[in-house]
Amino acid sequence: MAQDNQAPIRIALLGAGTVGSQTARLLVEQHDELVHRIGRDYQIVGIATLDPVNDPWIDQSLLTRDTAELCTRADIVIELIGGIEPARTFVLKAIESGASVVTANKALLAKHGPEIYKAAQEHGVDIFFEAAVGGAIPIVRPLRESFAGDKVNSMLGIVNGTTNYILDEMTTKGLDFDVALHQAQEKGYAEADPTGDIEGYDAANKAAIMATLAFHTQVGIDDVSVEGITKITAADIAAATAEHKVIKLLAVVEHTEAGVSARVYPALIDENHPLASVHGSFNAVFIKAKEADDIMLYGRGAGGAPTASAVVGDVVMAARNIVSGTTATGIQTYNTLPLAPADASKAAFAVRFLIHDKPGVLASIAEEFANHGISINGVNQDLQPTQHDPGYSGELQQLRVVTHLCDEVTLRKTVDAVCKLECVSGEPSILRVLD
Amino acid sequence: MAQDNQAPIRIALLGAGTVGSQTARLLVEQHDELVHRIGRDYQIVGIATLDPVNDPWIDQSLLTRDTAELCTRADIVIELIGGIEPARTFVLKAIESGASVVTANKALLAKHGPEIYKAAQEHGVDIFFEAAVGGAIPIVRPLRESFAGDKVNSMLGIVNGTTNYILDEMTTKGLDFDVALHQAQEKGYAEADPTGDIEGYDAANKAAIMATLAFHTQVGIDDVSVEGITKITAADIAAATAEHKVIKLLAVVEHTEAGVSARVYPALIDENHPLASVHGSFNAVFIKAKEADDIMLYGRGAGGAPTASAVVGDVVMAARNIVSGTTATGIQTYNTLPLAPADASKAAFAVRFLIHDKPGVLASIAEEFANHGISINGVNQDLQPTQHDPGYSGELQQLRVVTHLCDEVTLRKTVDAVCKLECVSGEPSILRVLD
Repeated sequence: MAQDNQAPIRIALLGAGTVGSQTARLLVEQHDELVHRIGRDYQIVGIATLDPVNDPWIDQSLLTRDTAELCTRADIVIELIGGIEPARTFVLKAIESGASVVTANKALLAKHGPEIYKAAQEHGVDIFFEAAVGGAIPIVRPLRESFAGDKVNSMLGIVNGTTNYILDEMTTKGLDFDVALHQAQEKGYAEADPTGDIEGYDAANKAAIMATLAFHTQVGIDDVSVEGITKITAADIAAATAEHKVIKLLAVVEHTEAGVSARVYPALIDENHPLASVHGSFNAVFIKAKEADDIMLYGRGAGGAPTASAVVGDVVMAARNIVSGTTATGIQTYNTLPLAPADASKAAFAVRFLIHDKPGVLASIAEEFANHGISINGVNQDLQPTQHDPGYSGELQQLRVVTHLCDEVTLRKTVDAVCKLECVSGEPSILRVLD
Repeated sequence: MAQDNQAPIRIALLGAGTVGSQTARLLVEQHDELVHRIGRDYQIVGIATLDPVNDPWIDQSLLTRDTAELCTRADIVIELIGGIEPARTFVLKAIESGASVVTANKALLAKHGPEIYKAAQEHGVDIFFEAAVGGAIPIVRPLRESFAGDKVNSMLGIVNGTTNYILDEMTTKGLDFDVALHQAQEKGYAEADPTGDIEGYDAANKAAIMATLAFHTQVGIDDVSVEGITKITAADIAAATAEHKVIKLLAVVEHTEAGVSARVYPALIDENHPLASVHGSFNAVFIKAKEADDIMLYGRGAGGAPTASAVVGDVVMAARNIVSGTTATGIQTYNTLPLAPADASKAAFAVRFLIHDKPGVLASIAEEFANHGISINGVNQDLQPTQHDPGYSGELQQLRVVTHLCDEVTLRKTVDAVCKLECVSGEPSILRVLD
């Protein structure tokens, strides 16, 4: 920010992939309108990428492979490289050079957020990342600003489009997980290495960011308990459908008396629940605040243009702050809240066992639940098992137990005990049920 | 803002009604947490009200009847008086005295917004009003900030809880409008003088504010075309229900090639549309932006605590700006967009006529529509009229015509012509159909 007052604001773009290209397009296409909103002219001074780019919106003369050098000659650096390194190095370099940073990099913030927020505060620059959670949906800014007068108790949402698409396909077409994943990859909805999405890590990064913003305490990726969707079978989906439910991958962050928790898990949701109708690349987040009550924010969670919309919104805000010689209040983590112990959170669970159906099976299974102090809400033995169930042998019946609220630690102990019964076979399926 | 750097920020509250009392509660109850978020201590220096107040959260020693004087000794003035005058005088007084203003007063902003925004800019203070549209839902701030990098094409929403409650009651209990209104008044959901709500003026004020923020052009209350719900009959509701639709009062703002429009009208919505499940005091707003695509924001649109949540969020933001010696970018109306002419906007309409059923009726009505160039999408003669229809005589049949897209001016001319036919009796009912 050492530049002359009248000189255009210098913007550097790191990364020229889908979002980078769309960001460049918006900055070029909407130039006049954005200058109005900023109150000063701006120009893209460089686009750092290691690969050749052939894109009508990317000016070839701006391309550079020297990312570090580019970071030192910009007022605003837009980081769209993704991943931890070298993104972290360049973001810190930009901040140390006095540039405000706009990023969509959830992995970086969930891992090194505290270091980056601190550096930004020390160097008097902005760090904005609306696009890191929920794509185009305003989530980060409302949490930083709109709920500044309230107390957020919990947030719950669908924040990963890839898994949402796969679960949609499994539900509507009866596909098994591997087939649905393969199709998603062919259509470009899932990456060649889909681990980050399907194992829940992408959603976990977003959960860490949401919890940090909502509860004003540091929650990192290592604090998030993560369960992906790789174990979901066509049999799980069929059982859910039979009970008018759908399976969605949820990110859930809560602040209770026991402390703070951040979790990602697939859950059964009633088909009438608003989240049940969130399909494909759409995301939705519910916020429960003490005074505001329930808020739902819904929109495109991914895609080039929607993500670029959020990125450029942040660029305009950072530029306005440069014009008025100020910065937004940094990320505030004045609380030091403990992580809630794993058994502090209660949920209802639906467990499917494969059983050899003979008299007394239900009684012995019910007895194990009773012995562990877990009360049963309902039992369903109508559903037929399929060859999609691990351990299926063609002679087995399916028994589905839905519990009342209990903690996961006790639930898993109970399921282990049940699985040791002679009448039980194969792998059980365990899913949370959203109330 | 002439005060000492270390002195607590001085907050004045104008009005001690439901929202005022809840705002005072939050400022007292959450004092320590809010001081963390602001970065400086604050104190309530006065509460202006003309009536005696008996409320545990209102400190009697702070009460004053001299509102103008209070405005001169505060850093932040919270205006919760409502209405145009004297609110306008006090808000301007506060701004001229160097105080930032937080208000929930939609009528004031829809009428005198430009004067107030200009005064705030001239005196270097903030004017925040998140609570003026959609209560606790973050709408104003996302429009001012999150969509700064995008182009909003339209907004559409349910923004008035009173009419939403009345229409809900009419739908679920089959009540006629007058009865539902009376019950809403008895339960405190509608005011003794309900005109502002039921005639659509409250929603119109919000539409004017939404259009101004979304399109960066001045749209005032007089630019909004308004139709309330007073003409909706139990017969309209019954006809809607029979066709799996509900009637909702919508605020709709659009930016098309013809210009800008802001409208409030009751419309038929498919029962599967997300807005159909927005009940009671909940509000919801859809935003259609060029890059971000569809966004939906949903939450409590009214009520003491939710509204106070938005008010205090604004107070914290204004206080942070005072601490860092800055202000947010003012309300930007750099566009001078024309109002779209009334016939520029096309919609599908559902028109119910009361007819003397004899051969040739449908033909002659259809001919009038054809003569006016309006194409008919469907006709329904199954529905029975009721004594709720104006002009009902017990011998009449009901004929419902749903048009393809047409403009309202031509539609109304057509309906007038149809009503002059001998076979048509009573008052027709005209409703838009949301596509």
